[in-house]
Amino acid sequence: MIYLDNAATTKPDCECLKMAEKYLTEYFFNPSALYAEGYALHRELEQTRKNILNLVANDTNFEIIFTSCGSEADNHALFCGGKRGNIVTTEGEHSAIISTANELKQRGIEVRFAPLNSDGSVNVAELLKLIDGKTSLVSVIHVNNETGAINDVNAIAKRVKAINPNALFHSDGVQAFGKIPFKISKDIDLYSVSAHKIGALKGCGALIKRKSLVLKPFIFGGGQEKGLRSGTENVFGIKVFEFAALKKYEKIAENFEKVKNLKEKLINLLDKELFKIVSSQNSSPYILSIIALGVRGEIILHEVNDKGLIIGTGSACSSNEKKRYSRVILSCGIDESLADGVLRLSFCPETSEQEIEQAAQILNETVKNRMEIMK
Amino acid sequence: MIYLDNAATTKPDCECLKMAEKYLTEYFFNPSALYAEGYALHRELEQTRKNILNLVANDTNFEIIFTSCGSEADNHALFCGGKRGNIVTTEGEHSAIISTANELKQRGIEVRFAPLNSDGSVNVAELLKLIDGKTSLVSVIHVNNETGAINDVNAIAKRVKAINPNALFHSDGVQAFGKIPFKISKDIDLYSVSAHKIGALKGCGALIKRKSLVLKPFIFGGGQEKGLRSGTENVFGIKVFEFAALKKYEKIAENFEKVKNLKEKLINLLDKELFKIVSSQNSSPYILSIIALGVRGEIILHEVNDKGLIIGTGSACSSNEKKRYSRVILSCGIDESLADGVLRLSFCPETSEQEIEQAAQILNETVKNRMEIMK
Repeated sequence: MIYLDNAATTKPDCECLKMAEKYLTEYFFNPSALYAEGYALHRELEQTRKNILNLVANDTNFEIIFTSCGSEADNHALFCGGKRGNIVTTEGEHSAIISTANELKQRGIEVRFAPLNSDGSVNVAELLKLIDGKTSLVSVIHVNNETGAINDVNAIAKRVKAINPNALFHSDGVQAFGKIPFKISKDIDLYSVSAHKIGALKGCGALIKRKSLVLKPFIFGGGQEKGLRSGTENVFGIKVFEFAALKKYEKIAENFEKVKNLKEKLINLLDKELFKIVSSQNSSPYILSIIALGVRGEIILHEVNDKGLIIGTGSACSSNEKKRYSRVILSCGIDESLADGVLRLSFCPETSEQEIEQAAQILNETVKNRMEIMK
Repeated sequence: MIYLDNAATTKPDCECLKMAEKYLTEYFFNPSALYAEGYALHRELEQTRKNILNLVANDTNFEIIFTSCGSEADNHALFCGGKRGNIVTTEGEHSAIISTANELKQRGIEVRFAPLNSDGSVNVAELLKLIDGKTSLVSVIHVNNETGAINDVNAIAKRVKAINPNALFHSDGVQAFGKIPFKISKDIDLYSVSAHKIGALKGCGALIKRKSLVLKPFIFGGGQEKGLRSGTENVFGIKVFEFAALKKYEKIAENFEKVKNLKEKLINLLDKELFKIVSSQNSSPYILSIIALGVRGEIILHEVNDKGLIIGTGSACSSNEKKRYSRVILSCGIDESLADGVLRLSFCPETSEQEIEQAAQILNETVKNRMEIMK
């Protein structure tokens, strides 16, 4: 089996699981408990917060709120940050932002969507035009989860703040964290990350927030996570997340180069008569969006699946929406006749060159056969 | 180490962890993915839903929404169910209900709290007086997490519906699920449960809901959990939850009797000159609330901790509130001078008789010594 759907979820890292095992079996206590064992876990989680935070920010100005997933972090940011006037976001957001923004619209907040460039990055000039004195929050995805387009969120945040210094700036960093070398600048107020996209577990994520920002809680109760997110801490999930994040950042530049070569190799091996490349050259090396010409992506997905190759179409999270065309791909200006053929291939540092070669061969063969059948 | 804080969290069941291990390593796919491996996991989770649901309800009339914890389930129920007029709850609720109710108050909903009986159960007559035609939701905890008092929520729900059939009835079943033999009646609309209280993992819970009830989503996004709770499913956490729940329900009556005997044994062994028993005879056998007379509970907690006995004071989740007295204990009508000495001992079926004997000895010794020092 060749697994090229790492943007949907990753195989948990066995080494990290092993390192965290004791939090399942031995250190199983409730970190809110007052006895020594509980308090020791509480203290350890404080260090874990710093360890994860320092990979992308600094713990003088920022703090980390553990959540159950990236979607929860996105919901927290938008519902608790976008409370007045209008919010500005992009057509290239993950469904956790789009759906939340649409719900805010129902609640009387004006929502403005900035258009995309052809690679899925946001059209910054158009985005900036949407911001005014009544904008309470701006949310721009860091790495687009379908095309891999990278938005320079630090630069965008700076320009947003120049127009309206009171507007909060949030970025969904789920596909960037652990993959794209990056430090959160002082212009970013909120940043969402997820554990299961970097070899850790489903059920864990985080919202990184500027310390001085006063935010309302998302889950009320026992007062965990500085009162912003109640519920017993998912200690095992958080520790696996820490170990996986530290491991990813240790080799982030090396992995970036390695995966970039894999992606380029795959692009070179794909038959250009059969495939159109959507992702631009400077997109995240971890995601490659392509269009199989004249065939349905979903059919190709199933056919290559039978041959042992696992790939995605759009976002896995969009599959529940049951829409034929990817919202993001259409926003890239791609015609419906082509959008039908979109496929997403996403990599991890463990992907081998041989797997890339086999994947290219399977994809070329499958689309060619399918086109011949359809003739 | 003798662990008697099972109401705060339980030691994960090694057998269940082992059974679920393959969902960490082999079946790590995203259940929303379209390929065979993803769809197979999706299908498997559908069966898991039925398996868990059928333990306390029936899958014809009810469905299960997996959440990240009991607190999230409580928040979902109250925020999405208590939307108009007034809501009625009790002074004996977990902080996930109390804090959410207080937030609803901030948002313009009238919140009415029913008083408690001396054992921590709700005064039903007083509760019913608070319900009127404008009541949109009633929430009554099934088993009080501090005293173990059992509220007959099926009977209460029936009487609530007789007054106002349109009022939703929610119950926090976190301390009841897997412990108290019980089936959700048709008068209950929403019921919260948690995985880590029954030998499964932190980071997983569920909101059981009547199928015909239209509820707003709590987390918006990819549309998982029938659109009510987006975010990639925590497959490993959910599978451990399933295995632990099935195991608990297989022996629920046997465990109930076993733990009941342990609790009675402990009550008998405690020196009545030193301790007052708060929990009533018909409370959950899994929780015993006692008051160490004339000493501070927190001091006793630390002293017995040094001797290898782990117990709680009030709820672990309340420790973040940094209040000296337990809200619930005061609502039981216990004077502040006594409330200071409250201790919570909570059991699991794996607790041994020998551990109970040792625990009683340590508690008696410790409180006696402390009293002598204070003379």
